Amino acid sequence: MNVDKLLAMLEQVASGSLEPRQALQHLKNFPYEDLGFARVDHHRVLRRGFPEVIYGQGKTPEQIGPIARALHEQGAAVLVTRMEADKAQAVQEQFPGLAYHADCRCLTLPSPEPPKAGTGVVVIISAGTSDQPVAREAAITAELMGSQVEMILDVGVSGLHRLLDSRETLEKASAFVVVAGMEGALPSVVAGLVERPVVAVPTSVGYGTAFGGLAALLGMLNSCAPGLSVVNIDNGFGGGYLAGLIDHLG
Amino acid sequence: MNVDKLLAMLEQVASGSLEPRQALQHLKNFPYEDLGFARVDHHRVLRRGFPEVIYGQGKTPEQIGPIARALHEQGAAVLVTRMEADKAQAVQEQFPGLAYHADCRCLTLPSPEPPKAGTGVVVIISAGTSDQPVAREAAITAELMGSQVEMILDVGVSGLHRLLDSRETLEKASAFVVVAGMEGALPSVVAGLVERPVVAVPTSVGYGTAFGGLAALLGMLNSCAPGLSVVNIDNGFGGGYLAGLIDHLG
Amino acid sequence: MNVDKLLAMLEQVASGSLEPRQALQHLKNFPYEDLGFARVDHHRVLRRGFPEVIYGQGKTPEQIGPIARALHEQGAAVLVTRMEADKAQAVQEQFPGLAYHADCRCLTLPSPEPPKAGTGVVVIISAGTSDQPVAREAAITAELMGSQVEMILDVGVSGLHRLLDSRETLEKASAFVVVAGMEGALPSVVAGLVERPVVAVPTSVGYGTAFGGLAALLGMLNSCAPGLSVVNIDNGFGGGYLAGLIDHLG
Amino acid sequence: MNVDKLLAMLEQVASGSLEPRQALQHLKNFPYEDLGFARVDHHRVLRRGFPEVIYGQGKTPEQIGPIARALHEQGAAVLVTRMEADKAQAVQEQFPGLAYHADCRCLTLPSPEPPKAGTGVVVIISAGTSDQPVAREAAITAELMGSQVEMILDVGVSGLHRLLDSRETLEKASAFVVVAGMEGALPSVVAGLVERPVVAVPTSVGYGTAFGGLAALLGMLNSCAPGLSVVNIDNGFGGGYLAGLIDHLG
Amino acid sequence: MNVDKLLAMLEQVASGSLEPRQALQHLKNFPYEDLGFARVDHHRVLRRGFPEVIYGQGKTPEQIGPIARALHEQGAAVLVTRMEADKAQAVQEQFPGLAYHADCRCLTLPSPEPPKAGTGVVVIISAGTSDQPVAREAAITAELMGSQVEMILDVGVSGLHRLLDSRETLEKASAFVVVAGMEGALPSVVAGLVERPVVAVPTSVGYGTAFGGLAALLGMLNSCAPGLSVVNIDNGFGGGYLAGLIDHLG
Amino acid sequence: MNVDKLLAMLEQVASGSLEPRQALQHLKNFPYEDLGFARVDHHRVLRRGFPEVIYGQGKTPEQIGPIARALHEQGAAVLVTRMEADKAQAVQEQFPGLAYHADCRCLTLPSPEPPKAGTGVVVIISAGTSDQPVAREAAITAELMGSQVEMILDVGVSGLHRLLDSRETLEKASAFVVVAGMEGALPSVVAGLVERPVVAVPTSVGYGTAFGGLAALLGMLNSCAPGLSVVNIDNGFGGGYLAGLIDHLG
Amino acid sequence: MNVDKLLAMLEQVASGSLEPRQALQHLKNFPYEDLGFARVDHHRVLRRGFPEVIYGQGKTPEQIGPIARALHEQGAAVLVTRMEADKAQAVQEQFPGLAYHADCRCLTLPSPEPPKAGTGVVVIISAGTSDQPVAREAAITAELMGSQVEMILDVGVSGLHRLLDSRETLEKASAFVVVAGMEGALPSVVAGLVERPVVAVPTSVGYGTAFGGLAALLGMLNSCAPGLSVVNIDNGFGGGYLAGLIDHLG
Amino acid sequence: MNVDKLLAMLEQVASGSLEPRQALQHLKNFPYEDLGFARVDHHRVLRRGFPEVIYGQGKTPEQIGPIARALHEQGAAVLVTRMEADKAQAVQEQFPGLAYHADCRCLTLPSPEPPKAGTGVVVIISAGTSDQPVAREAAITAELMGSQVEMILDVGVSGLHRLLDSRETLEKASAFVVVAGMEGALPSVVAGLVERPVVAVPTSVGYGTAFGGLAALLGMLNSCAPGLSVVNIDNGFGGGYLAGLIDHLG
Repeated sequence: MNVDKLLAMLEQVASGSLEPRQALQHLKNFPYEDLGFARVDHHRVLRRGFPEVIYGQGKTPEQIGPIARALHEQGAAVLVTRMEADKAQAVQEQFPGLAYHADCRCLTLPSPEPPKAGTGVVVIISAGTSDQPVAREAAITAELMGSQVEMILDVGVSGLHRLLDSRETLEKASAFVVVAGMEGALPSVVAGLVERPVVAVPTSVGYGTAFGGLAALLGMLNSCAPGLSVVNIDNGFGGGYLAGLIDHLG
Repeated sequence: MNVDKLLAMLEQVASGSLEPRQALQHLKNFPYEDLGFARVDHHRVLRRGFPEVIYGQGKTPEQIGPIARALHEQGAAVLVTRMEADKAQAVQEQFPGLAYHADCRCLTLPSPEPPKAGTGVVVIISAGTSDQPVAREAAITAELMGSQVEMILDVGVSGLHRLLDSRETLEKASAFVVVAGMEGALPSVVAGLVERPVVAVPTSVGYGTAFGGLAALLGMLNSCAPGLSVVNIDNGFGGGYLAGLIDHLG
Repeated sequence: MNVDKLLAMLEQVASGSLEPRQALQHLKNFPYEDLGFARVDHHRVLRRGFPEVIYGQGKTPEQIGPIARALHEQGAAVLVTRMEADKAQAVQEQFPGLAYHADCRCLTLPSPEPPKAGTGVVVIISAGTSDQPVAREAAITAELMGSQVEMILDVGVSGLHRLLDSRETLEKASAFVVVAGMEGALPSVVAGLVERPVVAVPTSVGYGTAFGGLAALLGMLNSCAPGLSVVNIDNGFGGGYLAGLIDHLG
Repeated sequence: MNVDKLLAMLEQVASGSLEPRQALQHLKNFPYEDLGFARVDHHRVLRRGFPEVIYGQGKTPEQIGPIARALHEQGAAVLVTRMEADKAQAVQEQFPGLAYHADCRCLTLPSPEPPKAGTGVVVIISAGTSDQPVAREAAITAELMGSQVEMILDVGVSGLHRLLDSRETLEKASAFVVVAGMEGALPSVVAGLVERPVVAVPTSVGYGTAFGGLAALLGMLNSCAPGLSVVNIDNGFGGGYLAGLIDHLG
Repeated sequence: MNVDKLLAMLEQVASGSLEPRQALQHLKNFPYEDLGFARVDHHRVLRRGFPEVIYGQGKTPEQIGPIARALHEQGAAVLVTRMEADKAQAVQEQFPGLAYHADCRCLTLPSPEPPKAGTGVVVIISAGTSDQPVAREAAITAELMGSQVEMILDVGVSGLHRLLDSRETLEKASAFVVVAGMEGALPSVVAGLVERPVVAVPTSVGYGTAFGGLAALLGMLNSCAPGLSVVNIDNGFGGGYLAGLIDHLG
Repeated sequence: MNVDKLLAMLEQVASGSLEPRQALQHLKNFPYEDLGFARVDHHRVLRRGFPEVIYGQGKTPEQIGPIARALHEQGAAVLVTRMEADKAQAVQEQFPGLAYHADCRCLTLPSPEPPKAGTGVVVIISAGTSDQPVAREAAITAELMGSQVEMILDVGVSGLHRLLDSRETLEKASAFVVVAGMEGALPSVVAGLVERPVVAVPTSVGYGTAFGGLAALLGMLNSCAPGLSVVNIDNGFGGGYLAGLIDHLG
Repeated sequence: MNVDKLLAMLEQVASGSLEPRQALQHLKNFPYEDLGFARVDHHRVLRRGFPEVIYGQGKTPEQIGPIARALHEQGAAVLVTRMEADKAQAVQEQFPGLAYHADCRCLTLPSPEPPKAGTGVVVIISAGTSDQPVAREAAITAELMGSQVEMILDVGVSGLHRLLDSRETLEKASAFVVVAGMEGALPSVVAGLVERPVVAVPTSVGYGTAFGGLAALLGMLNSCAPGLSVVNIDNGFGGGYLAGLIDHLG
Repeated sequence: MNVDKLLAMLEQVASGSLEPRQALQHLKNFPYEDLGFARVDHHRVLRRGFPEVIYGQGKTPEQIGPIARALHEQGAAVLVTRMEADKAQAVQEQFPGLAYHADCRCLTLPSPEPPKAGTGVVVIISAGTSDQPVAREAAITAELMGSQVEMILDVGVSGLHRLLDSRETLEKASAFVVVAGMEGALPSVVAGLVERPVVAVPTSVGYGTAFGGLAALLGMLNSCAPGLSVVNIDNGFGGGYLAGLIDHLG
């Protein structure tokens, strides 16, 4: 729409019915119309095929269905997070193309055109069995972006050998997503072992002074290991997206 | 009642049965009786027709009904917030005049006399679909005060164009209510674009470090954009009331 | 600068050396150039003569002087907050026009053209003697905007009579700024007495569980009195600016 | 039991079968046995008839019944707080003497002997309808102690006249319990009006930045009004007990 | 001044130049003038001779001197808290009657007429040597009110015998002020031993998770011992005042 | 598996088919394989027979069953915490050997070989009836480790005599676990009476400013009594394990 | 003193001048006198020779000197923590026997009789150079108790080899004190490697979200590694004391 | 050292003086020696030439000098952060090669061999003048790693045009570091405009509810813009390192 208005104005300039200085004035007086934000955003979607996330919590199925459909029609991959099974089903009834992943409570639909492949492997590591849903959300996100994903699960205190047995996987990684609750020490351990960026995702797993993920978050933010950064508690999407983005660099 | 006592005393003074200095002493010894607060409050209701809010949470239908009726009989507009559907229905059975708004869980009844119109438009902007109930509560409040309300919804990262497409609405605003959860950045963006007061309403939408609206609140309080102030988390009523008040200035 | 580039392009369109659709493409490919934010901001300064604030803390005199001069040359009123006396003097040596207000640690310079007068009076009320610097910062801000300001100071528990003795002042107010530390109850009291917007400014005055202004802030955010909103702790500028803005409505 | 052991030992001393210095050594080597705490506690119960509180939350009916019966048999008044109706009924089936108060979720049984009367009246004031359960818990507690209780309810912003209409009640008070949520300003207002100790009870009523009663608590702790102290959030028992204690002084 | 206006009006009524109903209207239209707050406050000072506190922090000597003098001239006892030695000296130069107590950083001046004696003894107990300044502030406050004060100092883990050696003191107490930092357990211990109200004053003594007195405050608020209430961290004045108030009951 | 690889490599060295320096290089290039963590961990299990804990919350029965069986087959004692009854039953159906303890929501299975006995008695003390589940979790843990456990329950303000009546138990203790909610003062009291390490376990019992166990935690961390340390809120397992470990020293 | 009174009373019983039941009554009426706390405490000092700590912060040299001397004369080892050099010197002038340790700001004086040796070695491990003062405070404490201490310093991310090179030290440990700031992960790492109790001491080293040691504390409390407990932030004394206590078991 | 021991053992195996199974047993019994952590760490330094950071705060010059020299001798680039000028000078006197950067309080020394160049440009953007020191720390870090760095400073509300004028710079970026205090909204704005990873660095710039950077941190963690992650408050090093790492991918 902005495009049409702009074109019409530019054609008036071309036809001589509008002076360049008048056109300029027009733009200055109507500064909102040409504010590029929305367009940039649009471009991003169309160019990348990267997923647009819909935060499902607090939205009704009636709200989610049309948003998902609109994104799909613009060519985006669609990812709806935090969907309980019954609400997901209600959305699927409206828009049957969406697939439901019960383990991480996500609805997904890949973009119509296959996304560009990444440059390496996004390696997603989770500390405990209870952290798996967040790790799965990260995996689904990176996969929707076209990244190859490998997961190393249950790498807690009694499972560090899983990490060590996966040396080959670690070495081909372009980026890591490390998911942990409780004291959240695993990302530091991983960042000490590898040479690629580590996106740390604290989870709300734990009790008492875990304070819903705060202890894990603080542990990650204060890590001595460089090359590590943090996203919101339980934000598997954010972790997977950033890793997917890094995987598509170069 | 106070009035009756005061009048009786003044009549005693007029009739000479009470010395002025005795009357004065009387007032000094009974300082509570003439404490103006309650009267001021009464006056406000009668003069303005502005709504009185009843906070519904934690009250029984048996408690809410009579309060609502009393306010209505004093000429006030009535607004009951945070009413679940079944409790609202129980109140409506007692006091059928009340209308229920399921989207923001409010019961309302306009004041018997139409309120004075505002001077402009109260523009209410919400960031995400999940923030709409709070935005609606603000809208209903300002409307009960006699303000004209226009809403611009879903103005998040992927919807800033809605804001830009609404330039005409923005320009006729007397005041803004901007509702946002998560990082709560939208009020800053709006305050950077407009020249009217912006009332920011943080919402509890989000997860993890959103901490039930605390992140949004802090973001709004620390905004660099002047002309912006903040009300309590999820307090659509407070935002709508203040905007309505500004809209009735002049 | 953007302006020059835009004009050059539009003249190319007018001269036929650039097709309208090419120009459009140009704009689409270079979305940042036409992003209106900065221009909007500029306009605001030039049109309003409203003050631009420079947050002095953490900046060197060598940084502050040129910023202040640039704002002044654009026609803005200049306000530098949080300036210790010695740093202020160092800035004044570079830019002698600035006046220093030791009571609230501000440097000011009115805009070259006298600002538009407000519609009423901005009434600024402070709870305790220790809250006065913040109240003064609010007063200086509103005055720079062209508002008439009246102050009612030391209206604490033992000074409520000052509030009551100022009835005439209260009645001519267009907006209130109420400044209080400790439990921060004064804005609620004022909002219960008046019919105009109350901007509450919590201060860091207090000790122990005052938590540097947090208790006052929470008290204000949870006030039952409608028509009240809050700005950051010790943010006299923000309170004065918003009140000045409301005073200029209509 | 301790008593029996002590008496036996003292009788050995009296009969000459135990040397005084040996007895002393005995006491020194077994320091726990003569630690007076438990006995002091016993005395208190027997002498006062003051209520012993059983915190009902997290206890099973099977645990509560015998504790209540034991306290009753020692002559104490019994008060069980935070009892949901169904759990209360299960306890009553075991111990039918207990009365259930649904409004404040308490089970009570007065002490077998009527408690000593207080010296004045315990006046309990609550800010809002939602604060009444906590106020009722305070009232029941003070009544079990033998105090005369009068309540002034719903003394919020729009109900301050209730306070003013109750001048006579206020003047005969020996102590006040003032119960409020949200910004918790009512205890300060009351303490400014009266000359007796005010026990402030913050409640968890409110939302958003009320933070479950924290805002009210901080407001009360930072009150400028002297003569005011605070108990835990929602601790009606604590407020009522302290007021009852003050009422029994002299 | 209110008094003069009221008297003038009442004399008009007496002289027949003002109708009682007009006078009533007058009062209703000018609700602030007769708002009793300030007068109540005045009365309190004059009647009680209880101290008025001036919070010294953040005030200049030039501000403190006149306030202190004014309070003294109204017949109040004067107490200025949180005064560093040099600032105190500057105030004393203006108003030589004030005595400085270096141990608790207070300036005091008794009321011109000796205050009414209390009914018992205010017993002030402190946990550690570092808590003594707060305990002293409490003592000075209660003494200014006319209470007899006895202190039991350094009653920490290794000094509980001091408490036990003071049985006679404990038994003649009308009220207790118990001052403690760190985990703040002493007030609970005292409240378990005595039958009089205990005012707990948390202090900021401690480090790390003492969080400036928060740990002590929370410990006191969550005490299982009834008959205990809490004032702000380091608020010796508040504790002493409340104990003095209780000591003057009856 | 690591073992097999290592052995194969060492045999190549022995047979001369691999040079020592090549083998060294091998180890340097594959640093993960020989990282001892996992092995250490294995050893610990096999040697000690100490329990491995499975945190049940957030895991499905399908996940818990196999983990429990694997631990059992490695010779470990198995402890699954935070299991609701229905989920526990689903696990038991897969793995019938597990015993369910409804009072502390644990599933347990002793190690196949009886564990080594401890050197003394682990004494577990709980403050209130509501704290018992956490105390029971501690007891079960220490018993699985082979420690003899004695419990002293309900040692609150009104039950200190239980502590004093248990002198003999206290004296044979090798370590204490003291479990308390609310203000969490009991561990300090115990640590003041005994000469053995005290492991303090705060619980989430309480309301309001108990903040889910935070008040108890802070009280314990700030205790003046030496010889006391703290584990996570409600972490009965952690307390019992550490006490069991101390009990096995020497 | 209590002793003398008790003995006198017992002798009266022995001589027949006091009936056993009267003596019993005497004890019941004077419950404080025989409260064993203080005596227990005394005994502990005399028996153990364990150090008594004086928290130096907030105490004057005039207060510290006599307390230190009194403890010394009772036979205790003396440890004064948190002493700046100049204050320490002022204390030393009063009581020359005290030695000052500038690295951890402690004054010490061993007990007159050499303390009993421990059973093993207390191993104290610190994460970073900035954590050393806290580690040193722990070491000095354990040494005063008679324990042999070995330290492993600077075991951070880039220094884990120091830990591994100290295998022999680790194996002879009876207890560990592990000191770390920032994310506080080191105690978990150590607890995963060793079979002895680990006392974790968080430090205030760090910045930003380290929040003065809170991040380290939370990390330690939420550690998955069993056998680990925590003391207050920067509480080297507490860590050293508990480790020394464990080292003296058996 | 480990290397020497390992080699010696392998040579024993090769010479037949040690059986492979014995060697294996050796490794199993001495699990620490072959724990790869330290070696991995070493390798990283030598291979990358990436900087090792020394956190200067809380370390003495005597501690810092040798650490810096040792790192340099291992071939690492050296970066010492948080160094006040006088302490930096004292270090430089020991180790003259270090350069001091007063604007960000860093000491640096590039690695002896020039580091590998990055693949693009690390673009560092700061919101306000007060945020520049943190931005500079990030820049110095990335430059030490061999990355090309470009900075865009003062991109706050009134400086967004600087961002837009830098389109060319934005487009050649491989990674962004965005530094902001107060509400911390700038990283979200940048992440909405670009397609490369954004590392957000909150700063402690601000006052009141900025809570030392907490508001900025929460704003960044809750950002709706994907592709953004966060490091610790004021952690310019962490931001620069991660961006440098991403810049060296591919």
